Amino acid sequence: MGALRLPSSPLSLLLSPSTPILRSSPTLRLLRPSLSGGGGGGAPGRGGVSARSLTKDAAAAAAAAAAAAEGADRKPSSSSGYEGSVTPRSVDFNAWYLDVIASAELADYGPVRGTMVIRPYGYAIWEAIQDFLNVKFKETGHSNMYFPQFIPYSFIEKEASHVEGFSPELALVTIGGGKELEEKLVVRPTSETIVNHMFTQWIHSYRDLPLMVNQWANVTRWEMRTKPFVRTLEFLWQEGHTAHATLEEAEEEALQMIDIYTNFAYEQAAIPVIPGRKSRVETFAGANRTYTIEAMMGDRKALQAGTSHNLGQNFSRAFGTQFTDENGQRQYVWQTSWAISTRFVGGIIMAHGDDAGLMLPPRIAPIQVVIVPIWKTADEKAGVLDAVASIQQVLKTAGIKVKVDDSEQRTPGWKFNFWEMKGIPLRIEVGPRDVTNRSVVVSRRDIPGKPGKDFGVSMEPSSLVDHVKRRLEDIQSSLLQRATSFRDSNIVDVSSYGELKEAIAEGKWARGPWSASDAEELKVKEETGATIRCFPFDQPEGHKKCFMSGNSADEVAIFAKSY
Amino acid sequence: MGALRLPSSPLSLLLSPSTPILRSSPTLRLLRPSLSGGGGGGAPGRGGVSARSLTKDAAAAAAAAAAAAEGADRKPSSSSGYEGSVTPRSVDFNAWYLDVIASAELADYGPVRGTMVIRPYGYAIWEAIQDFLNVKFKETGHSNMYFPQFIPYSFIEKEASHVEGFSPELALVTIGGGKELEEKLVVRPTSETIVNHMFTQWIHSYRDLPLMVNQWANVTRWEMRTKPFVRTLEFLWQEGHTAHATLEEAEEEALQMIDIYTNFAYEQAAIPVIPGRKSRVETFAGANRTYTIEAMMGDRKALQAGTSHNLGQNFSRAFGTQFTDENGQRQYVWQTSWAISTRFVGGIIMAHGDDAGLMLPPRIAPIQVVIVPIWKTADEKAGVLDAVASIQQVLKTAGIKVKVDDSEQRTPGWKFNFWEMKGIPLRIEVGPRDVTNRSVVVSRRDIPGKPGKDFGVSMEPSSLVDHVKRRLEDIQSSLLQRATSFRDSNIVDVSSYGELKEAIAEGKWARGPWSASDAEELKVKEETGATIRCFPFDQPEGHKKCFMSGNSADEVAIFAKSY
Repeated sequence: MGALRLPSSPLSLLLSPSTPILRSSPTLRLLRPSLSGGGGGGAPGRGGVSARSLTKDAAAAAAAAAAAAEGADRKPSSSSGYEGSVTPRSVDFNAWYLDVIASAELADYGPVRGTMVIRPYGYAIWEAIQDFLNVKFKETGHSNMYFPQFIPYSFIEKEASHVEGFSPELALVTIGGGKELEEKLVVRPTSETIVNHMFTQWIHSYRDLPLMVNQWANVTRWEMRTKPFVRTLEFLWQEGHTAHATLEEAEEEALQMIDIYTNFAYEQAAIPVIPGRKSRVETFAGANRTYTIEAMMGDRKALQAGTSHNLGQNFSRAFGTQFTDENGQRQYVWQTSWAISTRFVGGIIMAHGDDAGLMLPPRIAPIQVVIVPIWKTADEKAGVLDAVASIQQVLKTAGIKVKVDDSEQRTPGWKFNFWEMKGIPLRIEVGPRDVTNRSVVVSRRDIPGKPGKDFGVSMEPSSLVDHVKRRLEDIQSSLLQRATSFRDSNIVDVSSYGELKEAIAEGKWARGPWSASDAEELKVKEETGATIRCFPFDQPEGHKKCFMSGNSADEVAIFAKSY
Repeated sequence: MGALRLPSSPLSLLLSPSTPILRSSPTLRLLRPSLSGGGGGGAPGRGGVSARSLTKDAAAAAAAAAAAAEGADRKPSSSSGYEGSVTPRSVDFNAWYLDVIASAELADYGPVRGTMVIRPYGYAIWEAIQDFLNVKFKETGHSNMYFPQFIPYSFIEKEASHVEGFSPELALVTIGGGKELEEKLVVRPTSETIVNHMFTQWIHSYRDLPLMVNQWANVTRWEMRTKPFVRTLEFLWQEGHTAHATLEEAEEEALQMIDIYTNFAYEQAAIPVIPGRKSRVETFAGANRTYTIEAMMGDRKALQAGTSHNLGQNFSRAFGTQFTDENGQRQYVWQTSWAISTRFVGGIIMAHGDDAGLMLPPRIAPIQVVIVPIWKTADEKAGVLDAVASIQQVLKTAGIKVKVDDSEQRTPGWKFNFWEMKGIPLRIEVGPRDVTNRSVVVSRRDIPGKPGKDFGVSMEPSSLVDHVKRRLEDIQSSLLQRATSFRDSNIVDVSSYGELKEAIAEGKWARGPWSASDAEELKVKEETGATIRCFPFDQPEGHKKCFMSGNSADEVAIFAKSY
C-alpha cells in the first residue's frame, strides 16, 4: 500500500481547492491516489466491496441489524493475502492510518477535494457512537430537531468573533434554480446563528426556558489540509444548542455535556481523554468558554475529540434573543452549544490500531465476534458448519454481535488477517478436532499469538456465552488500560520553557503551570509547534509558578502538537 | 390563526427566490407570515415553545427517550384557549394544514425562502418513520453509509435525462474558502451520479454484486412553490442505491422496496396508498421505470409518498460502472434507487387530521397516551397525582409511550384541546372520584365526544394495560379503515374522457383504461390539472379499451390532481 499517501502532503497543495479530483485523470492520480486502490488488480489489502447478499429469508430484525452493520459479506476480487498489507505504524504513522482506512474499508475519498465517502463499516462505527449518545442526550432532557443548512450570509456577520473565526472556511451558494441569488447563502459550518434566529421567535418568557435541542447533521468547512475522518470539507456531527435563564445554568449544562462526552470516550471508546478548559486563544469563535476532551493518538499527537461551549450572551445579544423574567424584565438568554463528529472515528482508529490494522473496543464494534470454520474434507465441513451455526445462534441470542466467515474462496489464515484488519475483538476458530472435543479456540485481537488464545473453550452454550462476554469485557478494559498507560508515560511535568521544548521535541505532551499571555502562548506554538490543549479539570494541589512568566499560576496547562 | 397562509400563494411569487425572509421585516411579514405566529401575545394556538426542563434526576433511558420525543413540557405564554384555533379544514384546507403545523409545533419556516425548521414534535414523527424503515432496510440486506453532498457539476451532465430533469432546480456552490471555484459544485438534489462514480471504483467482478446501500441525508432542490414538509428547498430523506448483475434482480429489488414502503404506509402510518408504476411522462429523470405509492389526502389531492426506480443501465453506462461476469465478459451493472422523505410527515398530517388538529396513528405517535389529572382542592390533588404517577409507571413498563400533563397553568379543558391538536391517540382523565372508584376515563382522539369515551375503566394494572393496548390497536385500524373508505368513495371508474373531466372537476380521482400517447397525457394535464398518478399494481381483469384513444389497453391508470 505504499502508493497510498496523505492528501495533506506538500504535493496536494499544488491542487486548486476548487478542482474536483477525478480518478479518471492519470495526472491527478499521481498526486493524490485513491484510498480504495487503483483500477488494477492485485494490490494487497484492496480486495472486494462492501456488499451483502440480499437474503430472501430475512433474519429477525435484531440479528439483521447486526448483520447489516458488518457492511460486507466480503467477496474478495484479489487473491493476494492480507499479511503486511499496511505500512507499519512505526515507519509512517500517516501512511499506516490511510492504509488502515482503505484496507478495513472504512472510508474512501469523494470526487471533490477534501470530501470523504463513509463506507458501511466506517458508518457502522459512527452509528454505534450515535446510538449511545442519542440516548444520553434524551435522558438529559434534549430533543432532536432539524435546522436548515442554508444560512443567510448576513447572519454569520452578526457575531463579531464568529465571523472572524468562520469566514475563511465558508462554502457559499450563489446560484439557485438557475439564477444568481441576491444574498449569498452559507452552507452551515455550525448552526449558532440560525439557531438563535429561531430561538428569538420561540422564546418569550422564563417559562419557555430552558430550551434544549440537538441535531444530527452534516456541516461544511472549507479546510485546506484534509485527512479522512480527522478533517474533511464536509463531516457529520451532532450539535446541541441550549438556552437558559441564568449564566449558572448554562455553565452547568456546558459541563454536563463535556462529562457525557468524557464518559462516552472512557467507557465506550476506551479512550482516556483529558477533559478541561481551552485557553482564550483556542476558545470557539463566539464562546466565552470552551470545554474539550483531548485524546492522545498512537503517534502521541493530541486530537480534540469533542467540545462544549458556554456561549454566554454573545449570540443572544447579536440576535436579540430575550425573555421576560419572573419580575417582568427583559433579559438576554444564556446559551451553550456542544458537538462530537465523525472525527471521533479517526480517534478510535489512531488510539487503538496496530500494525495488523484496526482494533475496536467491543462496546462500539459493529461485529464483536467473528467465527472462522476450518475444514479439509467434505465430511469435516458438514460437522464444522453445523457446530458453527449453533454457536452463532447461541451468541446472537445472548445479544453478542457475531459474524460467520464461511466463504470458500479464502484460507483460514487469510481470514484471520482480514478480520484482524477490521479490528474484530474476538475470533472463534472451529475445526474438526474442536467438533469432536465439543470445544473451540477463542483468540483476542488485542493480544497477538498464543498468549491471546484460549484453547479448549467448551461449546456448552452457557459456558461459551460466559466466556465470550468475560473476554469482551477483558478486552474493553485492557484497551482502556493500555491507552491510559501510554498516555501517562507520555506526559511530562515541566517547570521551565526549556523542559517544555524538550518534551515536545521528544513527541510528548508537556504539563506545567501557566498564567502567561496570549502572545506567549502563540510564541510557544511558533517555536515548538505545540498549543495549549487544555487546562485539565484534574489539577495538582499547591502553589504553582508559571513556567514561562514566573508569575504565580492558578492552573497547569497541557501543551502538545495536535491534529 | 387566519394570518397563517401558504408561502406558495400567488403573493409569494413576488419574492425573489434569493431573498432570505426575515421576520423583522414588516413588509415581508405581510406577504409571508411566520408559522410560529407574530411577536405579540394572545394569538390563539400560538403559545409556548418546544422545551423541556432539564431533569436533574434523569429518568431511565427508555422512558427518557419517549419523554424527549414529546418535545415540549409546554409552558404556554398565552392565556388563550385552544378552541377553534385552526381554520376549519372544509373552509380552507391549505390554511388548516399550515395552522395545524404551527399549533401542533411540527415545523416553522427557516430564514431562507422555502426552507423549513423541523421542530422536536415533527422530528419525533420523522424518527418514528426512520426507526421502522431502518430495520426493514437492514433486514433486506442494505447497509447504511454516507456520500458527500457536493457533486461536481460535470457529473450531473453525464446522464442526459437526469440533467434535463434536475438542472432547473440546482443550488450551486461557486465560492469555497474565499475563492471562486474552478468547477461549480452541485448541492446534492439526489445522489445517483456520485454513487455511480464510487460504485465504478468498488465494483470489479460479479462477486462484488449485489451492492446494496442506503443513506439518511439532506437534499436540496430549488423549488419555486414550497409548502412545509410537502415541498421544501431542503428536505430530509433516505436514498437507497443498489447495483446488480442482472436486470431481473434489479427489477425484483425495485419492487421489493416499493413493497416495503407500501407496508409501512398501511401498517404504521395507516395510509392506504395505491402502489403502482408511473407513466413514461412521470418517470424519474434517469430511470427506466418508477414505482410509486400514491396517497389520497383529506382534500382528495394525491401525494406521491415514496418512489422506487429501476434505473436499468442508464447511470452505469454514463459512468462506466462495469463488472466482469462469470464468463470473464465486462458488463454494465443494473441499478435501482428508492426514497422516502420528510414529505411523508405532511402526508400523515393531511391524511388523518381534522378540525381539532393532528391525528396520529398510534404506531408512529411519539406520545400514545396523555394523562390529564383533574383536581380542585389540595387534598384531591395529592390523591390524583399519586394515582396518575402509578398509572404512568404501569403504562411505561408495558412499553406504551405515555406523557403526564400535570402543569398548573392550564385548565383540564385547555389541555384536552391542546393534546388533541397534537394528535395524541388516547387521553386518560383521572379525577378525585376516579381515584375513589379506582377507575379512569379513557378518550379516543379519533371519535369525538361521548361515543369515544370509555368510562369506569379499572386502574388495576393488567386490566388497564390491556384496555389501553386494545384501544390503541382499535384506533390504528380505525384510522386505516376510515382512510380506505374515504379513498374508495373518491375514486371513480371512467370509460370516457368526459367522465374523467367530470370526476376531476368534482375533486375525485379517475381510474380508467389508458394506452394513449404521452402527448395525450399532457393534454389531460393541461385541460383538467390531473396527471397519471400510476398504473396501479392491482388491475381489473378482462379486456379494456383506452378511454382516450379507443385502442385496446393493457392497464387502467389513475388520474388525479396532486401535490
